[in-house]
Amino acid sequence: MNPHNDADGRLRHLLDLERLVPAQLDALLRRAQVFAAGGEAPQALAGVAVCTLFFEPSTRTRLSFQLAAQRLGAHILNFDASTSSATKGETDLDTFRTIQAMGVRGFVVRHKADGAVAALAAAAKTGVALLNAGDGRSHHPTQGLLDMLTLRQAKGEDFSKLKVVIVGDVKHSRVARSDLHALRKLGCGEIRVCGPAALLPDDGTLAGCTVTHDFDAALDGVDAAMMLRLQRERMTEGLVDSLDDYHRDYGLTEARLRRAAPDAIVMHPGPMNRGVEISDAVADGPHSRVLAQVGNGVAVRMAALEALLG
Amino acid sequence: MNPHNDADGRLRHLLDLERLVPAQLDALLRRAQVFAAGGEAPQALAGVAVCTLFFEPSTRTRLSFQLAAQRLGAHILNFDASTSSATKGETDLDTFRTIQAMGVRGFVVRHKADGAVAALAAAAKTGVALLNAGDGRSHHPTQGLLDMLTLRQAKGEDFSKLKVVIVGDVKHSRVARSDLHALRKLGCGEIRVCGPAALLPDDGTLAGCTVTHDFDAALDGVDAAMMLRLQRERMTEGLVDSLDDYHRDYGLTEARLRRAAPDAIVMHPGPMNRGVEISDAVADGPHSRVLAQVGNGVAVRMAALEALLG
Amino acid sequence: MNPHNDADGRLRHLLDLERLVPAQLDALLRRAQVFAAGGEAPQALAGVAVCTLFFEPSTRTRLSFQLAAQRLGAHILNFDASTSSATKGETDLDTFRTIQAMGVRGFVVRHKADGAVAALAAAAKTGVALLNAGDGRSHHPTQGLLDMLTLRQAKGEDFSKLKVVIVGDVKHSRVARSDLHALRKLGCGEIRVCGPAALLPDDGTLAGCTVTHDFDAALDGVDAAMMLRLQRERMTEGLVDSLDDYHRDYGLTEARLRRAAPDAIVMHPGPMNRGVEISDAVADGPHSRVLAQVGNGVAVRMAALEALLG
Repeated sequence: MNPHNDADGRLRHLLDLERLVPAQLDALLRRAQVFAAGGEAPQALAGVAVCTLFFEPSTRTRLSFQLAAQRLGAHILNFDASTSSATKGETDLDTFRTIQAMGVRGFVVRHKADGAVAALAAAAKTGVALLNAGDGRSHHPTQGLLDMLTLRQAKGEDFSKLKVVIVGDVKHSRVARSDLHALRKLGCGEIRVCGPAALLPDDGTLAGCTVTHDFDAALDGVDAAMMLRLQRERMTEGLVDSLDDYHRDYGLTEARLRRAAPDAIVMHPGPMNRGVEISDAVADGPHSRVLAQVGNGVAVRMAALEALLG
Repeated sequence: MNPHNDADGRLRHLLDLERLVPAQLDALLRRAQVFAAGGEAPQALAGVAVCTLFFEPSTRTRLSFQLAAQRLGAHILNFDASTSSATKGETDLDTFRTIQAMGVRGFVVRHKADGAVAALAAAAKTGVALLNAGDGRSHHPTQGLLDMLTLRQAKGEDFSKLKVVIVGDVKHSRVARSDLHALRKLGCGEIRVCGPAALLPDDGTLAGCTVTHDFDAALDGVDAAMMLRLQRERMTEGLVDSLDDYHRDYGLTEARLRRAAPDAIVMHPGPMNRGVEISDAVADGPHSRVLAQVGNGVAVRMAALEALLG
Repeated sequence: MNPHNDADGRLRHLLDLERLVPAQLDALLRRAQVFAAGGEAPQALAGVAVCTLFFEPSTRTRLSFQLAAQRLGAHILNFDASTSSATKGETDLDTFRTIQAMGVRGFVVRHKADGAVAALAAAAKTGVALLNAGDGRSHHPTQGLLDMLTLRQAKGEDFSKLKVVIVGDVKHSRVARSDLHALRKLGCGEIRVCGPAALLPDDGTLAGCTVTHDFDAALDGVDAAMMLRLQRERMTEGLVDSLDDYHRDYGLTEARLRRAAPDAIVMHPGPMNRGVEISDAVADGPHSRVLAQVGNGVAVRMAALEALLG
C-alpha cells in the first residue's frame, strides 16, 4: 500500500515524490500556483495545530513551513528534537507519539536518517498527517515541488521538450533525488546530471539521465541549471580537493552560462556558497530564480498543508 | 494566607496541590474533562499574553502548555531563562518583573529550586497569575491533576476503594509529591509506595502510605501503578547500581503486572526509559494509559489557564 | 536621501533617531502614549508577517517586539541568525533576502556591527520595513523612544527646562547614543554625561553635553538620571578596575540621589547589575521608573510597527 494515501486514495502524508502519481503532483502544483500568485485561505486550518518536529536542525525550512501554516490559520509549534533535553533516552517514536497525543494534527518532520519520517508516519493516528521536510539523502518532497513550480512558471507546464541539468553533489543530496523523481513524473525531455565522480551516486538513482563530468558540455542548450550546495565536509572527507578547484570545474559563472539557452534559468536550493558552486554575478543575475524558489517554497507548503489537513 | 487564592477565596495562582481544597481540585478536574472530551473555548483568553518562563529546560511540558494556551486563544511567548544571555547577572525576580511589566498576564514557570515559583508569585501584580510547571523536588501540580483525571476516566470519581502504587525514585520526584497530595485530597483508599530505600524520602512525605521495597508485593491487587522515571544521574550519585538491577527489582513487566487487578492501569509521566522502569510490552500494552495522560495534560492545563486568567 | 523615508517623506524604516525630524519623533511618541494607556489596535497588522532577525542574541528585546507585534495582530516569527546552522557560509544579505522572499514584511533586526541594519534596509523591497533593534555601538532607536516616553510621562512634553544626566559606559552604549539624539531633537535643556574617562567617547558624540567624571556634581539638581549597564567585559578589557570601585564612584545610591531634584526619576535600560551601577534601594525605590520603561518599550514598538507596516 502506498503510505501516502488513505483507503480512498486521498493524499494522507507527503513523504516523498517517488510514490505520488503525476495527477497528485499536478494538483499540488496548481494549488501552489494560486498561493504563489497571492491567493489566501486564512481559515483553511483554523484551530489545527501543526508541529515542526526537527531531529536535524534547519531554521530556514522551518521558517518557510511556519509562514505557510500561519497563512492558513494554523497554530504552529516548534519542537527541536536535536537539542531537546526532554527527549533524553526517549525513542523518536515515543517523542512523536507523545506530541500526537497532545492533539497535534500536522507534523513537519526532518531527520538525518533515511526513511525515518516514513517510519513515524506508520504510527500516525487517523486524521494526523506527516510532511517530510527532509530525511537523510533520500527525500525532500517540498523542495522538489517548489523547484517544479519554479520551472513551470518560467517554462510552462509541458516539460517534454525541456532540457535540465542538475550539477554538483548529487550523491549526498535529497534535493537532487526529489527533483529527479519529479522531473521524470512530469515528463521532462532530457535530464542531465553533472559533477565529479566522487559526488555522483552509482546506485541506480541516475537511471535514464545523461551523466557527465564535463560541466561545459552539460550546459549546452539547457533550459535550466539546478545547482546544488557543496557541503564543506566533502573536503574533510577527501571527496573534493579544494573549493577553488571545485569552482573552476563545477562553478556556474557568467561565461559558462552562455552555453545554456538564452532564456535559461538558474536554480539553487540555498543557502548558497557564493564563489564555490555559483558566482555572485550568476546568483544575482537575470537568469537566477533563487529568490523565486524561496517564495514558491511557502506556496507549495501551503498547498501541501491544505491538501493534507484542510 | 493561602497564596493560591485572592481575597475572595478565588483561585489566583496554581503553585501546588497541597494547599488546594478538594472542591478546587474537583472543579479543575471537571472542567478538564470537558476539554478532554473535545470541548473548546477558543476565545476564553483572547488577547491575553501567556509566557512560559523556564529557568530549567523542558520542551515537552512547555509544548503542552503552549497547545493549551493556543486552544484558548491566548498569545503565547517563550522565555528560556536557562540559556538566555539577556538575563546575565539579573536576578530571577527582576527577570519576572520585567516580563510582567511588558503586559504578560500568565506565567508558566519551571525552576530547579524548591519554592522558587511561589517566591515569584509573591511579586505578581493584580490580574497576573502564575502556574507552577515544576519546582525542584516539590511540586508539579498540573502533572498531579492530569494523573487524577486519568484515574477518574478509568476508575470513576469515587477513589475511596482505589488501591494505587507509586513506584521508583519518589525521593527526587515532584511528580510523586503532587500525586500524593492529590490522592489524599481525593480520598484514595490505599496509597502504596515502593522503591529502593535510597530513593524513598524519610521526611514525612510518605505519611499514611504503605511503604515497601518489594515490588511484587506492592502490586498485589492494585488498580493503578504509577511508574516514575529513573534519572540516569542516580547511577553517578551511587544511589542505584545499574539499570539492569533496577529493572530486575523495580521494572514493570507483563509478568509482574499480573499481580495487579485485572483492569489495572499503568501510568508514567514520560519520557519513559524503556527497559528500565517499564518494559516495552507494558508501555505499549492494553493497561498502559501513558498517551492518555499526555492528552489529559493539555486538558488540565486549559482548565487551569482558564480558571486563573479567563 | 534619508533611508528612513520613502519618496513621499513617509517613514519607511526605523534605523536610528539621528535622522528623524522632531515631528516624526513626536508622532511616534504620541501614538505610543495611546498604547501605553491601554489603547489597542488588534487588527492593525492582521495577516502581516514580522520576523525578528537577530544576528546578536537578545531574549528581552525580542520578547518586547513579539508582544508588540502580537497585540497588533501580526504573525511573528523568530530567526536566530547568531546560532542558526542554516546560515553557515551564507552572507547576512542572503539571509535577509531569503526571508524577505518568503513574504515577511517586517524585520526587527539586531546586529553587532555598526551600520549593518541600514545596509540590509538598502536591499528591502517595496512594502518591506526594517526596525533596528540595536546595531553595534551606534543605534537602538526603540530604546531611545521608550526613554523619551518615560521622560514625557514624568515631566511633560516641554523638555526645555529639563536637566538630564547619562551615567556610565557611554562609549560602548547604543542606548546612550540614541538617547542623546532624541534628547537633542526634543530640545532638552541640559544634558550632562558622567563616567570614567575610559568609558566616555571622544569622537564628537558628546557635543553640547556637560561632561564630568564627578558623579556627585553631575547629579546636582537633575530631573532624571539615566543609568547605563556596566558590561562585565570592561573589567577584562582593563577599562574598569573592579565592580566595587565602579560602584563607589559611579553607582547610584540613595545618599547620592538626594543631590538630584526632589522629584527626579531614575532610569535604566536593563538588565540591571544591582550593587554595581545602581543600588537595590534606588532600583526598587520611589524614584525608579525602570519597570515603567519596560512597559513603554512595548508601547513604542507597537507605534513603530504600526507606523511602518499598518
